[in-house]
Amino acid sequence: MNKLKNLRNCRPNFKIGSKELGTGLFIIAGPCAVESREQIMESAKIISEAGADMLRGGAFKPRTSIHSFQGLGEKGLKFLKEAGLKYGLPVVSEITSAEQIKTAEKYLDAFQIGARNVQNYELLKAVGKSKKPVLFKNGLGTTTEEWLNAAEYIASGGNHKIILVQRGIRTFEDSTRFTLDISSVPVIKSRVNLPVFIDPSHAAGSSKLVPPLAIAGIAAGADGILVEVHPSPEKAMSDQKQQLNGREFTLLAEKLRKTHKFIEAYKLH
Amino acid sequence: MNKLKNLRNCRPNFKIGSKELGTGLFIIAGPCAVESREQIMESAKIISEAGADMLRGGAFKPRTSIHSFQGLGEKGLKFLKEAGLKYGLPVVSEITSAEQIKTAEKYLDAFQIGARNVQNYELLKAVGKSKKPVLFKNGLGTTTEEWLNAAEYIASGGNHKIILVQRGIRTFEDSTRFTLDISSVPVIKSRVNLPVFIDPSHAAGSSKLVPPLAIAGIAAGADGILVEVHPSPEKAMSDQKQQLNGREFTLLAEKLRKTHKFIEAYKLH
Amino acid sequence: MNKLKNLRNCRPNFKIGSKELGTGLFIIAGPCAVESREQIMESAKIISEAGADMLRGGAFKPRTSIHSFQGLGEKGLKFLKEAGLKYGLPVVSEITSAEQIKTAEKYLDAFQIGARNVQNYELLKAVGKSKKPVLFKNGLGTTTEEWLNAAEYIASGGNHKIILVQRGIRTFEDSTRFTLDISSVPVIKSRVNLPVFIDPSHAAGSSKLVPPLAIAGIAAGADGILVEVHPSPEKAMSDQKQQLNGREFTLLAEKLRKTHKFIEAYKLH
Amino acid sequence: MNKLKNLRNCRPNFKIGSKELGTGLFIIAGPCAVESREQIMESAKIISEAGADMLRGGAFKPRTSIHSFQGLGEKGLKFLKEAGLKYGLPVVSEITSAEQIKTAEKYLDAFQIGARNVQNYELLKAVGKSKKPVLFKNGLGTTTEEWLNAAEYIASGGNHKIILVQRGIRTFEDSTRFTLDISSVPVIKSRVNLPVFIDPSHAAGSSKLVPPLAIAGIAAGADGILVEVHPSPEKAMSDQKQQLNGREFTLLAEKLRKTHKFIEAYKLH
Repeated sequence: MNKLKNLRNCRPNFKIGSKELGTGLFIIAGPCAVESREQIMESAKIISEAGADMLRGGAFKPRTSIHSFQGLGEKGLKFLKEAGLKYGLPVVSEITSAEQIKTAEKYLDAFQIGARNVQNYELLKAVGKSKKPVLFKNGLGTTTEEWLNAAEYIASGGNHKIILVQRGIRTFEDSTRFTLDISSVPVIKSRVNLPVFIDPSHAAGSSKLVPPLAIAGIAAGADGILVEVHPSPEKAMSDQKQQLNGREFTLLAEKLRKTHKFIEAYKLH
Repeated sequence: MNKLKNLRNCRPNFKIGSKELGTGLFIIAGPCAVESREQIMESAKIISEAGADMLRGGAFKPRTSIHSFQGLGEKGLKFLKEAGLKYGLPVVSEITSAEQIKTAEKYLDAFQIGARNVQNYELLKAVGKSKKPVLFKNGLGTTTEEWLNAAEYIASGGNHKIILVQRGIRTFEDSTRFTLDISSVPVIKSRVNLPVFIDPSHAAGSSKLVPPLAIAGIAAGADGILVEVHPSPEKAMSDQKQQLNGREFTLLAEKLRKTHKFIEAYKLH
Repeated sequence: MNKLKNLRNCRPNFKIGSKELGTGLFIIAGPCAVESREQIMESAKIISEAGADMLRGGAFKPRTSIHSFQGLGEKGLKFLKEAGLKYGLPVVSEITSAEQIKTAEKYLDAFQIGARNVQNYELLKAVGKSKKPVLFKNGLGTTTEEWLNAAEYIASGGNHKIILVQRGIRTFEDSTRFTLDISSVPVIKSRVNLPVFIDPSHAAGSSKLVPPLAIAGIAAGADGILVEVHPSPEKAMSDQKQQLNGREFTLLAEKLRKTHKFIEAYKLH
Repeated sequence: MNKLKNLRNCRPNFKIGSKELGTGLFIIAGPCAVESREQIMESAKIISEAGADMLRGGAFKPRTSIHSFQGLGEKGLKFLKEAGLKYGLPVVSEITSAEQIKTAEKYLDAFQIGARNVQNYELLKAVGKSKKPVLFKNGLGTTTEEWLNAAEYIASGGNHKIILVQRGIRTFEDSTRFTLDISSVPVIKSRVNLPVFIDPSHAAGSSKLVPPLAIAGIAAGADGILVEVHPSPEKAMSDQKQQLNGREFTLLAEKLRKTHKFIEAYKLH
């Protein structure tokens, strides 16, 4: 039996809102969490001017502690959509349960499934029935094989618009928050024909390490990047250390586009 | 802020169905999955005669591959309840989404939340509002600190009947399926006053290693054990290698009770 | 080809100095490092009165930083031997290169090879030619299979007096210094017939966790224990947090002997 | 106290034999082991024609099993030197004990210290007294911090010609032999001013994954690469799966030089 038979029907080119995936480097950026209307508007402006393709921002935040900021919920999604419309950017946000889908579909162009829910099969089956693209992150303790098998849960429902996002795995190494497993990019590409992105922000845990990891990821063959950008990272309500400010992101986006063009031009992969 | 403030209100003594936790070693046993009425009846008979306190059996099976046997669903819960009633054993089974709670409550004396859903916070909040005890396993890639914080999600809903079950973590070591982190037993007990069980079956991945790990866990201070027992392990539809047969379990249960009595008698902890 | 053919000739019963291994629980104790004549004398007195079988103390200390205390060298071995003679205890200390063997043999009843040198094959071959027993610890990042293969390097030289000491592996879990892989005890015993000890001090990294881990290790079938004891742990020049004081060790030794007798009496393994 | 004070005196530009480090991408290539005069001659020819800067080949092979091929020893070094002389390439080979230094110095332009000896401090101190450059690999289970502290052992002896080579760490992920920790490149560069190379061959464990990992490593800021090349990988006496053949290497070397030039031209780091 072919365990990934539905995943093998997925293709790397599809539309997310007004944008086309697979025609060049695809950059998704935005703050860890939608904190206010003003903050997400400013974020959208920054990333739009820097040439990003899509806006991200957490509204239903899965936090390690129930006593930490849990996100603005539907209000956050509303702000996100408003910001996306104003700046011509499709928007994506994380959902954490099947019940949120109906509400979230009204605002979002794509769903994100985070590391904690990588094997939340009921949620995967539910987004598998939706028509919206899914950004699907690996779990901190799941193997690439398990991750692909989890993605098959989505594909089996009929939703073939899946982006796999490598966001680091948990190892003993403590100089970074997680260990970005860049080898998963070519490993996955040798198995299935899906778009693979990297998320250097969560892996690094430090804004200074984001550029080299992002460049390395694109050089390894990643199709896009998911990066955290905040107008004022030092004031962020979560993940302060790893979010880029506007200037840093603008510089990085430029470098990434150059890198992607270089890789494509020389057909390095 | 005390991040575990609700978990700290939990106590290690409470009832599960007709059985009392905290009055001696508590043994939960049964097959990986409920496969048929006959199989779960025979399992219940075996473990009841061996002196187990509770029957387990999976009905909603979270499987790595969507193409593997997914469990009998509600029919499995029905068989499980019937077996429990016949042999005077309370029953527990895993649930994987909040929507299953209403159905599952009709059949179960306790819910199990498995490794894959350790940070499925919507599910944790949902069982937090139930009155049924929760067996809560650690994730393969979650730290003890994150696990306790996840348990706080349950306790914050008002459900203080929580059993933490250590089932192994993922490491590079490959001589066992996972690495049973026995140190988590004393570590947790130094933080909160909850019952801590161990699951040697999933950690070991091999029935021969189950007895020494189980005995070590009880010796480390665990309050109980969750162990997989199948009338004919070689015919099991999942986890064949790690399930004990009736004779092996009867022998182990006897050893574990002796070990627990010994530990208690000499107040070794 | 049988990759462990020489290791399979090893036996669990042999003499170390005046003591006989394999006739009951074997306890090796002493400070992390020999710091002074007075300190090791006091340590020997404490552990002797508590019934330990052997004295340990580091003289050639392998330290992560070259700028940390490196041990007293040969002078430390001299003090160690003197303390052992006075209290009737054989002595063991770590060696870190083949060149130290000739000197060390004059003072020691057994050599210890530490985690950092688990695959220092030249050192292993060198102690393989010695007649002194070898306490051989696993590496933080080596599998059980690699550890056994490394022990085969010792056995292949003709030295069959090998004690394997499980001292924890490196994982993502951060509530303990390392993760004591207790399952390695039964795993090794299913492969070869060697004495297996555990070192709860280095694994736990905290003196409070040493007793439950030590008891669990013996309950899992370990033949002995290697534990750090210091007359005044708070004044120790290294590993302050994990060393037991005299009172704590005396209490633990008593508990461990009881546990070992209990396990033997009921033939739990 | 500055724990890395001597390492901080190291510089990234120095000569290895006739070649200058720090003036462009530096490529070290060659077979896992020197197997015969003919094989190393052919290897040298291949890599020389492809523009490599240095020839590698193991003579004292540290093998997991003592019963595996252990290398040709001094004879291997002799063949290696001969091949290097003929093709104008400096040569490097692994040494595994201080005693080998005197012999090895006659043949080698640089020493390699492998993963297993990353904390073999006596060996590190010994090469610290040599004048030959040292290629120093991380251990499978050592943190970046420990690796740097180990390198300080070399620098403290007065040898400041150190190249750090990232060769993967051990994690639970099993789709690659090890997990190449590419983030260690920027992490190290933020701490000390040493050349950092990557070894994609050992990390990947598969020749197909070598090119994307190598390109990613250079893109992340690595100064050079250590890669396994064999005239006929399928006939190699060790590591068959991960060695490139001549054609594959020639293609890769070209891609890597382009990538390095691109990174330099745009000052991406």
